Amino acid sequence: MAKARAISGFPEWLPEQRIVEQRLLDGIRRQFELFGFAPIETRAVEPLDQLLTKGETSKEVYTLTRLQAAEDEPAELGLHFDLTVPLARYVAQNLNDLRFPFKRYQIQKAWRGERPQEGRYREFTQADIDVVGRGSLSLHFDAEMPVLVHEVMTALPGIPPVTIRFNNRKLVEGVMRGLGVEDVAPVMRALDKLDRRGPERVAEDLRELGAPAEKLLAMAHVHGDVVEGVRALGVEHQLVDEGLAELVFVLDAVKGRPVVADLSIVRGLDYYTGTVYETTMDGHESVGAICSGGRYDNLVEGGKDKLPGVGVSFGVTRILGRLFGQDALPVGPKTPTQVLVALASEDERAAARDVAGALRARGIPTEVFHEPVKFGKQIAYADGKGIPYVWFTHSGEVRDLAAREQAPASPESWSP
Amino acid sequence: MAKARAISGFPEWLPEQRIVEQRLLDGIRRQFELFGFAPIETRAVEPLDQLLTKGETSKEVYTLTRLQAAEDEPAELGLHFDLTVPLARYVAQNLNDLRFPFKRYQIQKAWRGERPQEGRYREFTQADIDVVGRGSLSLHFDAEMPVLVHEVMTALPGIPPVTIRFNNRKLVEGVMRGLGVEDVAPVMRALDKLDRRGPERVAEDLRELGAPAEKLLAMAHVHGDVVEGVRALGVEHQLVDEGLAELVFVLDAVKGRPVVADLSIVRGLDYYTGTVYETTMDGHESVGAICSGGRYDNLVEGGKDKLPGVGVSFGVTRILGRLFGQDALPVGPKTPTQVLVALASEDERAAARDVAGALRARGIPTEVFHEPVKFGKQIAYADGKGIPYVWFTHSGEVRDLAAREQAPASPESWSP
Repeated sequence: MAKARAISGFPEWLPEQRIVEQRLLDGIRRQFELFGFAPIETRAVEPLDQLLTKGETSKEVYTLTRLQAAEDEPAELGLHFDLTVPLARYVAQNLNDLRFPFKRYQIQKAWRGERPQEGRYREFTQADIDVVGRGSLSLHFDAEMPVLVHEVMTALPGIPPVTIRFNNRKLVEGVMRGLGVEDVAPVMRALDKLDRRGPERVAEDLRELGAPAEKLLAMAHVHGDVVEGVRALGVEHQLVDEGLAELVFVLDAVKGRPVVADLSIVRGLDYYTGTVYETTMDGHESVGAICSGGRYDNLVEGGKDKLPGVGVSFGVTRILGRLFGQDALPVGPKTPTQVLVALASEDERAAARDVAGALRARGIPTEVFHEPVKFGKQIAYADGKGIPYVWFTHSGEVRDLAAREQAPASPESWSP
Repeated sequence: MAKARAISGFPEWLPEQRIVEQRLLDGIRRQFELFGFAPIETRAVEPLDQLLTKGETSKEVYTLTRLQAAEDEPAELGLHFDLTVPLARYVAQNLNDLRFPFKRYQIQKAWRGERPQEGRYREFTQADIDVVGRGSLSLHFDAEMPVLVHEVMTALPGIPPVTIRFNNRKLVEGVMRGLGVEDVAPVMRALDKLDRRGPERVAEDLRELGAPAEKLLAMAHVHGDVVEGVRALGVEHQLVDEGLAELVFVLDAVKGRPVVADLSIVRGLDYYTGTVYETTMDGHESVGAICSGGRYDNLVEGGKDKLPGVGVSFGVTRILGRLFGQDALPVGPKTPTQVLVALASEDERAAARDVAGALRARGIPTEVFHEPVKFGKQIAYADGKGIPYVWFTHSGEVRDLAAREQAPASPESWSP
């Protein structure tokens, strides 16, 4: 059998880290449910043709082949690279069984075959919320999304404060079209790399695409009074007016929150059509956005109704990879067990099982040690896993390992 | 964009079903933690060479290729077909960071490219518990596993009673070798199909393999006093004695539980080396085993220590597919929302947000309706999603939709 080894880009955690991850995921889920989002889970795969029309990321899709497939059988399925494309398909497919506006959350893995580096993984967990309308979707949902992101992130213990930046794609597209750009998608993608590549190299990229680099970078650098800044660019286009109005609507709704309009936010995915969001952890900006998303109006076609949506995705693996990597998120015990019932002899096994059963019935995670070895070895096992209490059936006492105290206790009434 | 459609073998649930699935998964997880199992999650992929040496199922592996990969780049990764092979690799990889016996649970998807049919999926959720020892592993864990399965299944609401059958591979292998069978793996796999193919066709399969069909079927049909039944076969082999002793050890530990020794249980996976388990839901035997597993002694090699393990896997998707398919598991609301705060006018939006915030702070999932349309429409939205209460800010009253009652309430003290 082959050697056991890690695979670059496919992170895994130790049990003590997974316990922290689960606490984070439970907290996220709790907040999503408090805001009335319903859970769904979609299959890991989508038809390749659905995955290959969604911009840059589609180049990094993993395709699937059954080992038993005929040699000339073409690959037809790929692993999803986000949870938004699957959501749109799910909504279109179950149109008559859902109620609108449809508010769903979804916490799942996604896969991208890109080069692994800090904050970029080939397999990662995302926690998404979206609201999808049938026919239309109120702009109020665009305005509530950053408020919700702030509430969720604030409710999670151990997570640093965040800053939420947002922009509007209509505004960006309007400026581009007003400046004579015809094929906006590649220009958007070039501009989206501003953070990573810096203004000089992005300016080169834009020039290579025949786009007016200086004016576009000037737009990206607008700050302070956004309306005045955009007007000062002197670009006229109907989409500029629409996008600016939407941007100001959202801005009005987020007063008092760490939410700022930032005209350099564009997002690389082609499907966004309005508001776009990017959230960074303060002091951890270099790892990139840990919660991003936006509005999409045309993600699925086919039926007579449009299905516009708006949502964000929390990058759980990116958050944890960063915080674990910097020892910024403390890990605790290696097990949920609260009590180890020590085994004095085989004769005590039935009594030990009874104590464990009584404690579990009262919601206290409990193990019985599997063999009657010396107590020192059993206590060392508890200590090594971070189990705080050891129960001795022969004396009816519980030992608090941290406090080094031992006292009589009844399994019917004792609590950790 | 392509049409939205289901893919055979990749089941998805509606939100009201996913809520039931989550309740089931939460209950399973709670029980696993009460028994002291620690969570891990492994990557979805393993090196193909690790997946391709594990018996029949390996033929149904999905291989992964990056769309950007060079044309002649060989596939090196496959999706895992169970959670046991990944566990063994994870343990060997993290040997020095784990404490032994290592007790872990793992709730994840697995994938098999087999022909979809009732109870057989290409993508499915499994909930696994295993205990892995370093060097050796006490037989007490084999004996505790069926007790644990019974406790877990009994704690889950809405799940039918179960029967847990178990056997011992050493015993089966001993009988085979005592009868002169040299290559036991294919004979095991043939015998494993007894349930599905029936005795006549399995007898043919066995004869084709040159195995003594009548004697093997006689072994599979031993019931009642197992020791007497096995001795009556008149087959002598050291493994028969070892396996029978282990079988009896487990049998003694499960008295009073719905656990029976069944010599027809073999399991198709090659890696089992001792105790094997299969659990069926009473009245739903035709869907197959919904919780199975066993002991494996040689799943990973390489280091100096053996890493024997024993565990079981709950087939969550198979359980739900069957019970949902027969309407045997009632589904409830389409959302976790308890209260919809109605919006009388835009002027009431701030007041509505305050009520929602106060209720959420007290742990009550709450939505604000997004636009001030007629109350009838807002109440219909709540009704359609199964939201039980509607809050009116202008009158300070809450309406119980099922009871058709409305009463004054304060967001600081009201409870559903």
